[in-house]
Amino acid sequence: MSEAKSTRRGFLTGGAVAAGGALLGAGAARAGDPAILEKQPWAQYLGEGVDARPYGYPSPFEAHVVRRDVPWLTADAVSSVNFTPLHELDGIITPNGLCFERHHAGIAEVDPAEYRLMINGLVDRSLVFTLSDLMRFPRVNRVHFLECAANSGMEWRGAQLNGCQFTHGMIHNVMYTGVRLSDLLNEAGVKTTGKWILPEGADASAMTRSIPMEKAMEDCLVAFKMNGEALRPEQGYPVRLVVPGWEGNMWVKWLRRIEVGDEPWHHREETSKYTDLLPNGKARFFTWEMDAKSVITNPSPQAPITHGPGPMVLTGVAWSGRGTIPRVDVTLDGGANWVEARMDGPSLDKSMHRFYHDFVWDGRPLLLQSRAHDSTGYVQPTKDELRKARGENSIYHNNGIQTWAVNESGEAENVEIS
Amino acid sequence: MSEAKSTRRGFLTGGAVAAGGALLGAGAARAGDPAILEKQPWAQYLGEGVDARPYGYPSPFEAHVVRRDVPWLTADAVSSVNFTPLHELDGIITPNGLCFERHHAGIAEVDPAEYRLMINGLVDRSLVFTLSDLMRFPRVNRVHFLECAANSGMEWRGAQLNGCQFTHGMIHNVMYTGVRLSDLLNEAGVKTTGKWILPEGADASAMTRSIPMEKAMEDCLVAFKMNGEALRPEQGYPVRLVVPGWEGNMWVKWLRRIEVGDEPWHHREETSKYTDLLPNGKARFFTWEMDAKSVITNPSPQAPITHGPGPMVLTGVAWSGRGTIPRVDVTLDGGANWVEARMDGPSLDKSMHRFYHDFVWDGRPLLLQSRAHDSTGYVQPTKDELRKARGENSIYHNNGIQTWAVNESGEAENVEIS
Repeated sequence: MSEAKSTRRGFLTGGAVAAGGALLGAGAARAGDPAILEKQPWAQYLGEGVDARPYGYPSPFEAHVVRRDVPWLTADAVSSVNFTPLHELDGIITPNGLCFERHHAGIAEVDPAEYRLMINGLVDRSLVFTLSDLMRFPRVNRVHFLECAANSGMEWRGAQLNGCQFTHGMIHNVMYTGVRLSDLLNEAGVKTTGKWILPEGADASAMTRSIPMEKAMEDCLVAFKMNGEALRPEQGYPVRLVVPGWEGNMWVKWLRRIEVGDEPWHHREETSKYTDLLPNGKARFFTWEMDAKSVITNPSPQAPITHGPGPMVLTGVAWSGRGTIPRVDVTLDGGANWVEARMDGPSLDKSMHRFYHDFVWDGRPLLLQSRAHDSTGYVQPTKDELRKARGENSIYHNNGIQTWAVNESGEAENVEIS
Repeated sequence: MSEAKSTRRGFLTGGAVAAGGALLGAGAARAGDPAILEKQPWAQYLGEGVDARPYGYPSPFEAHVVRRDVPWLTADAVSSVNFTPLHELDGIITPNGLCFERHHAGIAEVDPAEYRLMINGLVDRSLVFTLSDLMRFPRVNRVHFLECAANSGMEWRGAQLNGCQFTHGMIHNVMYTGVRLSDLLNEAGVKTTGKWILPEGADASAMTRSIPMEKAMEDCLVAFKMNGEALRPEQGYPVRLVVPGWEGNMWVKWLRRIEVGDEPWHHREETSKYTDLLPNGKARFFTWEMDAKSVITNPSPQAPITHGPGPMVLTGVAWSGRGTIPRVDVTLDGGANWVEARMDGPSLDKSMHRFYHDFVWDGRPLLLQSRAHDSTGYVQPTKDELRKARGENSIYHNNGIQTWAVNESGEAENVEIS
């Protein structure tokens, strides 16, 4: 190989150049492959035309890429949850059809023509908006992650669920279009005594959460689109609240009312649920902000290494309710050595970030971990550090470092190391 | 209204504050509305649970939001085209199910296990990659628009198609995940005589286009994901070429082969098609780059103003094959007065941009236009300026300013003004 070629082939640096050679070997071995030399079936017919699918859907070969639930985890399907298949995704956008769901009374099917949003309580004027009214206010577009407070909740008590879809899949990341909640509240005229809001859902659970006025005025959105199109029914069609960086339960779906009050309501979903029971019997409450967190999505238990030793891509996602993720570290040996991962894709406030580590696998077992740093300097803790501070009673706000053990065959397993 | 309230209600400036009052009036009138006072059906049942849709789809109320074709425009469906419903979308991401399609032999249904990509021609080593091989190269994520060179093509000869879906809907904008084409070419080792590439599709049309090596090495991607998930079948599943900023026809779908050569091939799709016939009988060819362009999506012929006079949102999209869009101007009176629109959402290289103009409609007729400025300083021309330079023989590369005439009822029509 000449000097000049060596320079042009520098896409993998150091030891990875040899890895490029390994890939090359594989490619060369396939030079006589009938799959490329012979005319394939799909080159011999006129395929379906543009009338086949006015609204498109994935290839039949991707039928395994779906939201999944864990039957033993919850009592019944309608008040239950499913999980985003993070191990099948890349980039930072979650496609709408794969955004995890969490319902408290199933999916409300709201007729958009009958949709109304009321603002009442400590306001100068109670207001009722139609969907058309809302669309007359100035709109903004923001990409934000939505994470359920109970994401990774089962892991408080040790490694239990074998796949990042199940341990970390109560998260999605989409671009919202909507209007500023502050514009609507200002239209109603918040009284000086108005310090809290209570958004309420139109479904049979009438989901309600207390949110301080500062957050409502700062960056909350009343959103009607996700990834360009109307919200999906399971995500609150036609209108949901967006509460950037805060736990998903507060992002009230099928939003029907916002009451303004002078103190929090201490409703069911912020007292008996969505509070974090500590070892001493007391509970942390109003733990709204989602701490910085990351997970390696590939390889992982549902996505083993199938190509054997050689150059490979490790990838994962990271996010923080407090800002951006400038840095993620990864370790291949359970924390003995850490290297800084390569971040790629837009770095947006309170949005999912994508990281990669391109390396050459020597075929020996791996203990994989990732560790997120957010823009405030906060560093993702270990599970043991979290347990030391908060015990193991809670199912909420577990942002501890996740470990996957990969064996010589490339299979991965959820484990804990101390 | 007190001073303090006036300040808080400043979301619309100037005359628009009164408009806020108009919205308020509407809201107040609905205070006794049974749609908000009475319990709606969806608050009285347990809705469908998480098992209902492992892969989700839009609300039945959104069944009108689909790709549409124009039957008279092309001879048959399999070699035809449909259009993105731009007037139903917001933000900058096109959801995968609504990305316009253009096929030359229908949709090839490629089995990913049988997928191969060959690189041959003026290279040191012919290579054949499986999908798994490709996924071992370092990945990048980029949001790019893909616009068909024939988008707005019918408008060369005057206002013909009544809706932005049909005049401007041969465009979509998604986040791609893939590997750099330069990495694959460097792996094969391009000979010093290799100055062009010829990507070839695996469908029955065997789509081929000549692309200069500089572009191939600069920013082209071999992509396998769009908006996080696998490419859709109609977008080239499992692998397509991404040629940022250049005409859509070059983004070869179902990519099976990349030949490296010393000169362009002058194939069918770059001679008899995708060339621009000038008045003097000569043709412009290799007109790859997509010039800066914009269109108002709302209001527009398919999306009239239905709420009557008062505050409203005008919105649209803009893009340039040469960079970003720092500025869009809009006019409400056919060009007598221009104002700078409000840009909102991520501004990314060779990506769609979203603009808004929040104004108070007085109920009089409007002549709406938008004019994009790109990051190179280029300004979108009028259709007349384009015709003066290039005549009316072509159906390609019409990036002229679009006009919608809105009448007192809020209905919009495609018109031309000189």
